[in-house]
Amino acid sequence: MTGRKAVDVVTAAFLVIGDEILSGRTKDKNIGFVARYLTSLGIDLKEVRVVQDERAEIADAVNALRVRYDYVFTSGGIGPTHDDITAESVAEAFGVPLLLDPRAIAVMETHYAPGQLTPARQRMARIPEGADLIENRVSKAPGFRIGNVHVMAGIPAIMQAMMDAIAPTLKTGRKMLSETVDADMPESRIAERLSAIQDAYPETLIGSYPKASDGKFTTQIVIRSRDEAILKAATGDVAKAVAELTG
Amino acid sequence: MTGRKAVDVVTAAFLVIGDEILSGRTKDKNIGFVARYLTSLGIDLKEVRVVQDERAEIADAVNALRVRYDYVFTSGGIGPTHDDITAESVAEAFGVPLLLDPRAIAVMETHYAPGQLTPARQRMARIPEGADLIENRVSKAPGFRIGNVHVMAGIPAIMQAMMDAIAPTLKTGRKMLSETVDADMPESRIAERLSAIQDAYPETLIGSYPKASDGKFTTQIVIRSRDEAILKAATGDVAKAVAELTG
Repeated sequence: MTGRKAVDVVTAAFLVIGDEILSGRTKDKNIGFVARYLTSLGIDLKEVRVVQDERAEIADAVNALRVRYDYVFTSGGIGPTHDDITAESVAEAFGVPLLLDPRAIAVMETHYAPGQLTPARQRMARIPEGADLIENRVSKAPGFRIGNVHVMAGIPAIMQAMMDAIAPTLKTGRKMLSETVDADMPESRIAERLSAIQDAYPETLIGSYPKASDGKFTTQIVIRSRDEAILKAATGDVAKAVAELTG
Repeated sequence: MTGRKAVDVVTAAFLVIGDEILSGRTKDKNIGFVARYLTSLGIDLKEVRVVQDERAEIADAVNALRVRYDYVFTSGGIGPTHDDITAESVAEAFGVPLLLDPRAIAVMETHYAPGQLTPARQRMARIPEGADLIENRVSKAPGFRIGNVHVMAGIPAIMQAMMDAIAPTLKTGRKMLSETVDADMPESRIAERLSAIQDAYPETLIGSYPKASDGKFTTQIVIRSRDEAILKAATGDVAKAVAELTG
């Protein structure tokens, strides 16, 4: 944990870039991973956006999110083809030029046979001026970090490897702890009790998640807090309410 | 198709409301469904956002999206518990009061035994003034439409039933057609050819989607156009390029 600064709350946004998610052709596999990964680090994911492969859309979203949250993570659009325009869009968002990066070229030369670093592949070495590279253990072509924005690949295996490379550099907050109570009833039956418990414990976040299966409704109640003692007390009250309403 | 107006392009945004998606506790199942559903109707999904169960976040997102796109669809936060605040947030976004709606009460009374429409359940009958109800065939508590914003439940089965109820009321555009060409090569090998084909057919959108499996990279190339003849010609050129590079 060297180099991490302990602060109470660290926030993040995740920006998914890609027409293929919006058309429904590709099922997103990155949002759930990033949500769980950041939560486990003690970083609160506050917002997710999915935008098209269009320069203005990407640049606008990056600029809206980077002033609002401690970190922005993006996935998608850094490959070698004409529709990969994330790097130039992020450079535009930061108002810096996009340059062929000698460090990126050097890394990629270890991956390709001599003469195989074609112009298309060199596209992947274009990095906004002033950015740091993010290591890609899978296929070498790097991601990059500029300001508080981390630009990663869209392929889940590569995105996850990049996330692992970034993680040690991030400041993290006090971890949000959570407990779950299952209630074998529709949430409307326990709603008033939960509302009272939420009021009694303002330092917790109590979520109620209905589930429909076999035509029957059950409820999962999730209690979240950064304070273990408060979490335990609130969870006890929820469990008691469930037991009373079940009995 | 009665009542549908044929226009070229109809756009939409999808707003997912819920802490449970952002914490990673619940895996989103609605984005992929809505993306495919709208595409099949001939509506272009242009943007997705996921926000927390916080009134200002929800109202700000609704207001940002409803002026930008023909339609906004939301899911989540219309249940009976204290953390379900979508209805009041949307009312705030439109600057109208949230009222106990007699139409919603009447629908819900058919679902519950006499005396079982408790105050918590009546929460689900609070609808922004001026809104139309959206039918819920699964569990009766309705969604609603106000302006161009359609507010739906988060439970996938209910959300999908509401989408089916909404669909006949939507104007739709000329359907985007697509063809897929599989290329047994990393996308960097075909990148330059694809770029040239994209330039030659500006009325198409050519996407290149790399896939890593068993340590090998292959590529799916998706060609999209609203014009069948142009789609066919561009797809032919892509297939030819793939064959030449494979041979």
